[in-house]
Amino acid sequence: MILSTQSKACEVADKFTLGDKLPDLVKAVVESYENDNRTRHIDCEFLPAPKEVSHLIRLSLELFFPGFLGRQDLTTFNVSFHVGELLPMIARLLHRQVKKCLCYQQIQVEGREPDDKGCHLRAEQVTYSFLERIVDLREMLAADVQAAYDGDPAAINYDEVILAYPGLLAIAVHRMAHELYRADVPVLPRMISEWAHRKTGVDIHPGAKIGQSFFIDHGTGVVIGETTEIGNNVKVYQGVTLGALSFPKDERGRVIRGTKRHPTVEDDVTIYANAIILGGETVLKKGCVIGGSVFVTASVPENATVTITPPALRMQKRCFTEPSSDDDVPMGDFQI
Amino acid sequence: MILSTQSKACEVADKFTLGDKLPDLVKAVVESYENDNRTRHIDCEFLPAPKEVSHLIRLSLELFFPGFLGRQDLTTFNVSFHVGELLPMIARLLHRQVKKCLCYQQIQVEGREPDDKGCHLRAEQVTYSFLERIVDLREMLAADVQAAYDGDPAAINYDEVILAYPGLLAIAVHRMAHELYRADVPVLPRMISEWAHRKTGVDIHPGAKIGQSFFIDHGTGVVIGETTEIGNNVKVYQGVTLGALSFPKDERGRVIRGTKRHPTVEDDVTIYANAIILGGETVLKKGCVIGGSVFVTASVPENATVTITPPALRMQKRCFTEPSSDDDVPMGDFQI
Amino acid sequence: MILSTQSKACEVADKFTLGDKLPDLVKAVVESYENDNRTRHIDCEFLPAPKEVSHLIRLSLELFFPGFLGRQDLTTFNVSFHVGELLPMIARLLHRQVKKCLCYQQIQVEGREPDDKGCHLRAEQVTYSFLERIVDLREMLAADVQAAYDGDPAAINYDEVILAYPGLLAIAVHRMAHELYRADVPVLPRMISEWAHRKTGVDIHPGAKIGQSFFIDHGTGVVIGETTEIGNNVKVYQGVTLGALSFPKDERGRVIRGTKRHPTVEDDVTIYANAIILGGETVLKKGCVIGGSVFVTASVPENATVTITPPALRMQKRCFTEPSSDDDVPMGDFQI
Repeated sequence: MILSTQSKACEVADKFTLGDKLPDLVKAVVESYENDNRTRHIDCEFLPAPKEVSHLIRLSLELFFPGFLGRQDLTTFNVSFHVGELLPMIARLLHRQVKKCLCYQQIQVEGREPDDKGCHLRAEQVTYSFLERIVDLREMLAADVQAAYDGDPAAINYDEVILAYPGLLAIAVHRMAHELYRADVPVLPRMISEWAHRKTGVDIHPGAKIGQSFFIDHGTGVVIGETTEIGNNVKVYQGVTLGALSFPKDERGRVIRGTKRHPTVEDDVTIYANAIILGGETVLKKGCVIGGSVFVTASVPENATVTITPPALRMQKRCFTEPSSDDDVPMGDFQI
Repeated sequence: MILSTQSKACEVADKFTLGDKLPDLVKAVVESYENDNRTRHIDCEFLPAPKEVSHLIRLSLELFFPGFLGRQDLTTFNVSFHVGELLPMIARLLHRQVKKCLCYQQIQVEGREPDDKGCHLRAEQVTYSFLERIVDLREMLAADVQAAYDGDPAAINYDEVILAYPGLLAIAVHRMAHELYRADVPVLPRMISEWAHRKTGVDIHPGAKIGQSFFIDHGTGVVIGETTEIGNNVKVYQGVTLGALSFPKDERGRVIRGTKRHPTVEDDVTIYANAIILGGETVLKKGCVIGGSVFVTASVPENATVTITPPALRMQKRCFTEPSSDDDVPMGDFQI
Repeated sequence: MILSTQSKACEVADKFTLGDKLPDLVKAVVESYENDNRTRHIDCEFLPAPKEVSHLIRLSLELFFPGFLGRQDLTTFNVSFHVGELLPMIARLLHRQVKKCLCYQQIQVEGREPDDKGCHLRAEQVTYSFLERIVDLREMLAADVQAAYDGDPAAINYDEVILAYPGLLAIAVHRMAHELYRADVPVLPRMISEWAHRKTGVDIHPGAKIGQSFFIDHGTGVVIGETTEIGNNVKVYQGVTLGALSFPKDERGRVIRGTKRHPTVEDDVTIYANAIILGGETVLKKGCVIGGSVFVTASVPENATVTITPPALRMQKRCFTEPSSDDDVPMGDFQI
């Protein structure tokens, strides 16, 4: 069989210019920038650059898990040089973004002139603190890797977890974002979290407090809200929401920000796929197990297992010999 | 502790060539191309290039939200030059992709010679119309940013919404795709939508009609079908499906395309996480609230709140003193 | 309206160096590498490089679907040259990654010296087998494209499915990963799967056996476990989990790997959004239909349709004339 030859040469050159329409179009767009200050960022340059944030995250992951991502040929002999090169790069990137965020905060939120020197020094402190926390972060992450390996029968070894488990990527990036959230850096932590959300489908607010040995399996659709508190050895499956029941509002009907709105999850809790746990006063007590698709808005006692009652399913049997008949065949004795 | 030295030099050079197997392998693959016209695109060059579509979307987002993405140092003095540079780039990219799609449509769907000049001119119209809609689109997007800020207590300010909210990215790209869908451009709108789906986990068909001040929180797993109609001030949480109940088929059993298959959502409706709303005749009337995990296939009246009955949960308590006993401890008096 | 001019020149140069802190920081990080062998990959270079894996997948997709991705100007006359260039590139990349994985396996899992020549030869076999399977894979993928077109009324034609359907991307990459899983290549198959998971939100373990004409619509949140077996003409919607009920453990409480833990799905089954099917002994028999949000842990008979009972929904009506009153208006006669 010969492929058909539908290809046609372009008769008209593929050129397209806006010609004399350009000035009016530009004018209209620029006026629209002037008319709405919510969607422009002009004359105020201090904002983290998404590309640099992404670069910062990638280099940090390379530092956290040496030899897996980025450079792979590390040996006892070259590893110090590699770290000695990586650390200053991370430091510079982080300092620059943090400083931008602090200047931004002063201009946009506090409405004053940015104290450039003050922001520079505070960014320095934040950067040093972060770098000094790397060893502790690595310990946390090693426990998370262990938790993933222990929790998933499909896991072959630690290396596979580090290379291919979205849940590990999500928690690694969260632990990084949470450090900066705790240091009161504005904007940047949420951008870092959202980077992981895009890659993994796991949406953890940087404010969430998460204990040791945390494992999210599969991950897609998991949502963990800002004021969530999670203990040690907790295991969460895809589609789980730890969310707010409703938002308290002030006397003028405005949402009050900053209150405890999301659940508390104690040590050794497992939450299966698509379960929804809501409310700032909801506590999943030590060792409890929340079954798949459970919807909970009240606390669950220690070591309890909560499952949905096997839903009363309706079953019909299609009759293929008489396709025009759509009668349901009752399945009374069938138990599902 | 000294790191172990397991690294070994390769004894065999890492070279690998197909050698004399190449011609037969190539022949087999090319024959497979000839044998199935569903999965090849050969001798018919008109199709949007995924990389150029991605570039078009990024530049458009840079234009919609100046100073946030891409170039960040915009000032009153340089912004006109920036827009004057960006607009023609967007125009050329858009014109080129739209023209390709129109030629493609004529060849592949209508089965005729592509009218190159006609496609060129129609692509010009579509491009101009799109550029003239930018100011309106920006107004819509500003209202979407406001809705996100108002709707999420964790939001610090508008800038954070623009930089880090996946729901905003999803609706911004949808509004762009929908413009091109309305202009009857084939293929391209769906490619644009899918770009946002990949980034955000939010799958909005470009055909969906969405009113002002729309907010999707978290977003992962949201599906909004082609014939969905959504009013103003609607708020949707992660995992919500606005889908089809079943597909009407013609007398030969083929799915009929183009009928109203998806729900209508009126103004001021809120739909919480994982709710599933199905059917083209299903209307969520003004002001109603759909609770988490609700499954609805019929209309809901104005201002009604629909929630699942607290599911009858089964609770067992594990007895840790006698691990071999797996008896359930009835929890009759426990209410969850 | 004139844009405000908040931009300020930096008084302090934006320089930041770690200065004399660098050596101690490097030392601490390198020591942390020495102290935990779970999260480092040093002195053992054999691991697939994520970037090369990503490149391998992209080139393979270009080969599977000629003219859609990557190079688009293919004609009857140049296609052989294109394939003749692409095939050796894929072969070299695949051989290199497979060989790394095999050497890695010998060092890390079997704890012995890597047999470089043996790994090289085995990688050669795997590569040839994969290349010889391309024609068969393309036939499978053509049937998948057809299934997507037949199953989705919003699909315009095959080309749109190939360019913009995440479900097709997920199954195409899965079929590739599964080939390498069957050839007992370690680590690499899971990395390939996870690439697709990141792009599509569909998490298919490379071990899952999936028959012909498989269609996943929307896709986000779908999880298909390692020991799942799926027949022909199966259709799955977003958020569906085919998962494990519980993990069998050995006498020491360790999870036993490798047993059949996930469901079997026979031919012609449809599973609607967010349904959860669990357990290695659960069989969805030929032709059955699983409704949205159904939770099933037992087998379903042939041609049965299982749906959740319309959940007893609670409906309240908000009274807007007296906003301070929050009384529920019972809606006893309202049927939803």
